[in-house]
Amino acid sequence: MTDGLSSQTPRSDLQVSCSKLERSRLELKLSYFQPKSWSSNPHCSACVEIAWNSALSDDGERRDRPLFIRSVPLLKPHHRLAILLHDGIRGDKGKTGLSLLRFSEAAIAAVIDRDCAGENLAELTGIPCAAPIVASVADALPYQPDVLAIGIAPTGGALPDEWQLEIRLAIAAGLSVANGLHTRLMDDPELVALLKPGQWIWDMRQEPAGLAIGTGKAKTLPCLRVLTVGTDMAIGKMSTSIALHRASQQRGMRSKFLATGQAGLMIAGDGVALDAVRVDFASGAVEQMVMQFGNEFEILHIEGQGSLLNPSSTATLPLIRGSQPTHLILVHRAGQTQLSRLADIFIPPLRDVVTLYEAVSTAAGAFPRVPVAAIALNTHHLDDVAAEEAIEQVSIETGLPCTDPIRFGAAKLLDAIL
Amino acid sequence: MTDGLSSQTPRSDLQVSCSKLERSRLELKLSYFQPKSWSSNPHCSACVEIAWNSALSDDGERRDRPLFIRSVPLLKPHHRLAILLHDGIRGDKGKTGLSLLRFSEAAIAAVIDRDCAGENLAELTGIPCAAPIVASVADALPYQPDVLAIGIAPTGGALPDEWQLEIRLAIAAGLSVANGLHTRLMDDPELVALLKPGQWIWDMRQEPAGLAIGTGKAKTLPCLRVLTVGTDMAIGKMSTSIALHRASQQRGMRSKFLATGQAGLMIAGDGVALDAVRVDFASGAVEQMVMQFGNEFEILHIEGQGSLLNPSSTATLPLIRGSQPTHLILVHRAGQTQLSRLADIFIPPLRDVVTLYEAVSTAAGAFPRVPVAAIALNTHHLDDVAAEEAIEQVSIETGLPCTDPIRFGAAKLLDAIL
Repeated sequence: MTDGLSSQTPRSDLQVSCSKLERSRLELKLSYFQPKSWSSNPHCSACVEIAWNSALSDDGERRDRPLFIRSVPLLKPHHRLAILLHDGIRGDKGKTGLSLLRFSEAAIAAVIDRDCAGENLAELTGIPCAAPIVASVADALPYQPDVLAIGIAPTGGALPDEWQLEIRLAIAAGLSVANGLHTRLMDDPELVALLKPGQWIWDMRQEPAGLAIGTGKAKTLPCLRVLTVGTDMAIGKMSTSIALHRASQQRGMRSKFLATGQAGLMIAGDGVALDAVRVDFASGAVEQMVMQFGNEFEILHIEGQGSLLNPSSTATLPLIRGSQPTHLILVHRAGQTQLSRLADIFIPPLRDVVTLYEAVSTAAGAFPRVPVAAIALNTHHLDDVAAEEAIEQVSIETGLPCTDPIRFGAAKLLDAIL
Repeated sequence: MTDGLSSQTPRSDLQVSCSKLERSRLELKLSYFQPKSWSSNPHCSACVEIAWNSALSDDGERRDRPLFIRSVPLLKPHHRLAILLHDGIRGDKGKTGLSLLRFSEAAIAAVIDRDCAGENLAELTGIPCAAPIVASVADALPYQPDVLAIGIAPTGGALPDEWQLEIRLAIAAGLSVANGLHTRLMDDPELVALLKPGQWIWDMRQEPAGLAIGTGKAKTLPCLRVLTVGTDMAIGKMSTSIALHRASQQRGMRSKFLATGQAGLMIAGDGVALDAVRVDFASGAVEQMVMQFGNEFEILHIEGQGSLLNPSSTATLPLIRGSQPTHLILVHRAGQTQLSRLADIFIPPLRDVVTLYEAVSTAAGAFPRVPVAAIALNTHHLDDVAAEEAIEQVSIETGLPCTDPIRFGAAKLLDAIL
């Protein structure tokens, strides 16, 4: 049984009793476990880990209580991925798959994109990856993947029939599936029936079990908490947080990247799919994630979501309130003047955006002062000379340290925090 | 069949086909309908209304498209309510039930609170309501209620076993149930099996079907959009919005109150249970609600939620982005210096809170300027003289019009908007 998983049959009626357990701490890993006793939420994660604390009660009897319940990442560095990315390399819906290509520690066996099968991946994407591009799941099988990662968000959100057939084929061929869509694949009994021992479906874009509302208590943690914020969506907040995390590790710090979206979860494992959490529990979900790691690590790099300037995503506020950041890093795309998908909304001067983020974080003094420590400038579309000029200009305009952490490394940003 | 409802059996496999329909607009009301074709979301509302638009397509064939899908309020002014409010009159968990007592247009047959059965409701609550307080659902039946409204949030969120028995008894006795808890009663097959024709369970705290992400397009509406915001949670935002709505109607305006929480939904019907919506769709849910009524009414009064100062609720941002308010009304409790449930968080000076809300709404210029037009001051705990002094003081401190809209009427607030 791969990954220590037990039987793959959905067991939504499973009840755990542990009054007889002798161990003080037990970790249960189940592939599909709905902890009915703690949550009636049908959105709860497909895979959860429960840590138990065993103690003697007043009447001398041993009682076991759940210390925490968290979703468990199923994707591991030893896996070989086939990334389902139809029309995603040239199109604009493949952000998750392209992020996986850029950052995943797992090997990429093949990329599936019917639009550019046979072409050169590195030339098309600029990402140094030698994996072949193939037209279908069937064509990917000879490259021996063991996990199919769904790396694209279909227009409208619903899964096209032809993709469903491809996913079915992948499962029938023995692959596990990492699914970052809102659509739960575990709800499809025909797919579930195909699963064999050791095979799993990870529906990661689901609300975790056992959530509570937020309280702001992350501010009591001793660690640094660095949150990326942005002038728009999809401009490099996740990449910046990962680059900062790796720079922190290189300096010997106990550092942790905490994912808040499906791409980050596939890359790093620990975190929460914030956009699948109900508003009532949004800041609480972030708080639970940060509290879980905040005593263990010196610095947490929390992946930002959305933008205070973009009406499509309001995830920024629960991220700020839940993580109680000590520092913000503002991410901007060089030269961008309007929101990319809502062109009638203009991006204000960066110094005003800095003031806005600091004002919201501090909330007129209700919370401690939180500085925007530096600007991460996405210069992907510029050559080196133009990139350096843009960075210099933003640094002068804002009076803050600035660099492109993907192109030039994140050391300058980290210096501004430490 | 009461309320035009069809059979009460859950029909989650129902598919609607309407290519043959001749009418240009058809409204379907079904008691438990999951529109699988538009949403795979298991949180969708228990009752939805679909408006169809029929048009000739290019090939000359008649096509029917859903214009909108919205949840339908099932509680109507002709109903007689029994309010389940155990320990809620003296305790602090009965906000929903007490709001119903104060504002519901439906008659109150009885209030069920085991803690103060037989006592005088008006004396205990200050709300002029002559309904008896009884100890149980069984004791309420002689007063001939036809709907049991769950007016209390149990500690921890889960429904205690004894309450479940009471709800079962109510349904068996022929009552419908208005449920504002996160827990879905329609998921309990034993309860559903007890429903007879004309009887319903309204699980209102569920995500509506057919949501999309927000775009900020509410700013194009011609109507006034007034959003209440607050220095804390549970201080009178809903009451203020209802008072403003009634004052607007008294002036002959086409006015609409839009609920965003379970109490508001029970009182007014139209709206969205925002805290049950996933973060991804939060501003979109508010936007959909506002767009649905924004061309039909001159002024929308949107019930506020949460507070930018309170880390427990981050619903304020999707409300601001989704409704694109033209005016904000800041609600504050006279003399309150700290958050009521998080006493380590101090409320900043009101003029700074005004600046914060205006800054977030305008977002450094990305959105049109939105003024805080006036302050609604909750003086429930003061006598008339002290209330007038507090109002005068806040008005001087902020330089804004101020009154207590429950005690003195909302005319002064409305004047500040018009």
